[in-house]
Amino acid sequence: MDTRNLAISYATSNFEKFLTDLKELIAIPSVSTESDRNADVSFCADMVANKLTSLGIEHVQVFSTPKHPIVYGDLLHAGKDQPVVLIYGHFDVQPIDPIELWNTPPFEGVKKGDYLFGRGASDMKGQYIACLAAVESIMKTGEMPVNIKFILEGEEEIGSPSLHNFLVEHKELLKADVVLNPDTGMIAPDVPAIIYGLRGLAYFEIRTYGPDRDLHSGTFGGVVHNPAQVLCDLIAGMHDADGRITLPGFYDSVLPLSTQEREELNRLNLDDAYFAAQVGVSQVNGEKGYTSIERIGARPTLEVNGLLSGFTGSGAKTIIPAKAMAKISTRLVPNQDPKKVHTQMVEYMERTAPPTIRWEVELISTGNPSISDINLPETQALAKAFESVYGVKAVLKREGGSVPVTADMQEILGIDSVLTGFGLPDDNIHSPNERLHLPTWEKGILTLIHFFFNIQPKGSAVN
Amino acid sequence: MDTRNLAISYATSNFEKFLTDLKELIAIPSVSTESDRNADVSFCADMVANKLTSLGIEHVQVFSTPKHPIVYGDLLHAGKDQPVVLIYGHFDVQPIDPIELWNTPPFEGVKKGDYLFGRGASDMKGQYIACLAAVESIMKTGEMPVNIKFILEGEEEIGSPSLHNFLVEHKELLKADVVLNPDTGMIAPDVPAIIYGLRGLAYFEIRTYGPDRDLHSGTFGGVVHNPAQVLCDLIAGMHDADGRITLPGFYDSVLPLSTQEREELNRLNLDDAYFAAQVGVSQVNGEKGYTSIERIGARPTLEVNGLLSGFTGSGAKTIIPAKAMAKISTRLVPNQDPKKVHTQMVEYMERTAPPTIRWEVELISTGNPSISDINLPETQALAKAFESVYGVKAVLKREGGSVPVTADMQEILGIDSVLTGFGLPDDNIHSPNERLHLPTWEKGILTLIHFFFNIQPKGSAVN
Repeated sequence: MDTRNLAISYATSNFEKFLTDLKELIAIPSVSTESDRNADVSFCADMVANKLTSLGIEHVQVFSTPKHPIVYGDLLHAGKDQPVVLIYGHFDVQPIDPIELWNTPPFEGVKKGDYLFGRGASDMKGQYIACLAAVESIMKTGEMPVNIKFILEGEEEIGSPSLHNFLVEHKELLKADVVLNPDTGMIAPDVPAIIYGLRGLAYFEIRTYGPDRDLHSGTFGGVVHNPAQVLCDLIAGMHDADGRITLPGFYDSVLPLSTQEREELNRLNLDDAYFAAQVGVSQVNGEKGYTSIERIGARPTLEVNGLLSGFTGSGAKTIIPAKAMAKISTRLVPNQDPKKVHTQMVEYMERTAPPTIRWEVELISTGNPSISDINLPETQALAKAFESVYGVKAVLKREGGSVPVTADMQEILGIDSVLTGFGLPDDNIHSPNERLHLPTWEKGILTLIHFFFNIQPKGSAVN
Repeated sequence: MDTRNLAISYATSNFEKFLTDLKELIAIPSVSTESDRNADVSFCADMVANKLTSLGIEHVQVFSTPKHPIVYGDLLHAGKDQPVVLIYGHFDVQPIDPIELWNTPPFEGVKKGDYLFGRGASDMKGQYIACLAAVESIMKTGEMPVNIKFILEGEEEIGSPSLHNFLVEHKELLKADVVLNPDTGMIAPDVPAIIYGLRGLAYFEIRTYGPDRDLHSGTFGGVVHNPAQVLCDLIAGMHDADGRITLPGFYDSVLPLSTQEREELNRLNLDDAYFAAQVGVSQVNGEKGYTSIERIGARPTLEVNGLLSGFTGSGAKTIIPAKAMAKISTRLVPNQDPKKVHTQMVEYMERTAPPTIRWEVELISTGNPSISDINLPETQALAKAFESVYGVKAVLKREGGSVPVTADMQEILGIDSVLTGFGLPDDNIHSPNERLHLPTWEKGILTLIHFFFNIQPKGSAVN
């Protein structure tokens, strides 16, 4: 048996042991949002560090931050020609409320049939235990074929506030060729996915101001430009008839979808009917010329997130409101720059807003889009691993949401991420009765073993 | 001296007496909105009835209603050829809060210089005391040249809920040729006004529904039609580039402005700059082809009164809201029918709303527009009276607001109203320190004496 098969064999014999490791971690209520759980989050960091050390990972260190600790470790004996894979994870979990909806104790890993129930089972204690299990299986039966570094944080569920500075301060320590981020998931138990692109964000509050007070709509209706009407006019004008966004220059830096990407994205049966059923609408709507899956992952969008003006109680109040407000956010794709989009929004308002009202555009938050090369050797290594274990090709996919750590890794460390994971859409993450589908998870461990063995020396082709 | 001049002379000698009458009424805190003042409102009704009786008015009666009493009285000895003038008034007043902003006791008529301060001094105890003073001046020196009826209610400030049924039940009793409603006001101390038109109202709540819950705008932005965006699109489409309303058939029954009306309305110096300054905007806005004063009084309008959707707190929440709501009201002019406008709004939605969302239009309230013939003999009689006393022509004007009693009188009793009054725009009605400009008020009493004498037998021309 070659080293790869020895490792596979070790893993297959030790699924129960890995499950015990996972249950130990689930038992620690590392809820990062609740300050009375701070000690639990710290304790979880220590547990994670101990696990790394006991595996034989070197230079394990728990760094304190202004909030929750960050755990680092590495194993760099595969030689200079082999790439360094930086494995990202987070050991904090979501709160458990509403507790009364749980059928098992949330901080206890309870196995029922094919599932392990418990907070963090899927998001994402189960995912990095899978990484550790793969590394353990290889190390117990041979040597790691690639260099690895671990970075595990305790603040992902609160937006990773300390990570940015940590990356800036430890650039050299974290130097790597690629990031493995197992915090996304499968599309279905038989459909693995690799995410290579994430959208960015530019979030605005737009305010329009009309008369200096709410006016009686009888006395003044007809001569004063209504700021709520103007706001609606402005918002209506932000899309054209084809569902394209009209901010000046908005599409100039949008990276077009390659034929390869379009083929990949549309291999899935995620058609219009699928999305309509997911959200309870009769039909979908979006930019002309693109399929639903392309629109979500690979095309920028502009959404009204909120509206407020004037009288909103029950019944009637006949006023012309003095002001109106909209929350408007754009999801951005490579290579759009949120700061440039801010400029474009201001320019749109300058060109479009009538001189009869005053207006303000406030930039509330930004996030950069990120994309990894679809032909990155590590992406190909992972795709091949999935095919070996699941017997199907993994879907190469861009996602609509933002994983800020991915953009940070790219901008600060200059490293692309390969995003994947072995959770399922119905794992109830962030909800009561979070669970992990164990057969999928076990296949995930085997996939990661293959992944590490599939990685080739830098500069060589995937075989 | 003829009877007219005798009456004028009597009035001129008795201004102090009339002022005392007014102070007596101001002293009664007849606040109709506050239920602990119910006894005060009833007492005020009795006082008003006593005053009518003591003047020599006949058939004086206090009718009870589900809420506050209505007072009736008449004097019908001028002969069948003379018209019957139904004098409308209300003896209830607005609340006095915030009491700390008053400089004098609100329920005490306090004279300071040219002003009498006190709640109801201008709105409208002072106005119907002016009517009683004119009638008294004529009756003390001769006989009423016209037949008169009084109807005085105690619920105007709460929307006249009992009046409608009272009119229906007492059609015969209230039969008259014209209504004199002195509840509007002057434009300036030297600019009297007669209102012959009021706008109606159709008030809607429009709701759009998208996905079955608020969605993550990253995960679904691009494939779901955002109901807040759709609502903005729909609202934007309700006006065309010329500021005209696009509801199908909306203008079909709008009575065009006659050349005479346009001339009358625009005699005033109420230009764009006047309205812009009034409300604190840099420039006005409205339907093309009409002046500001025409737009407010004689053209229908559509206003957004309120908007609500999704996230409206501080900061950012990246959602596609499940629904959105707008309060939208139209001000209507003769001969528009609010119920037809409701149908037009529904038809607009049917034609315009995309099939990707669901929508609802709820009709919240309606009010009919009203207009009196600009050439009504009583209007001419009042205009001539104003000219005799003030030395200027009164402005014949349509107003933007709604006085529901006027439409009720027209619909139920079939009687046009002549609206006027001797209050000024800066009388602080509905606010602390309400006041009455006494020189204007005294001229008003003289004007009303002239008005009664100017009225000619039915069928004859004004001389």
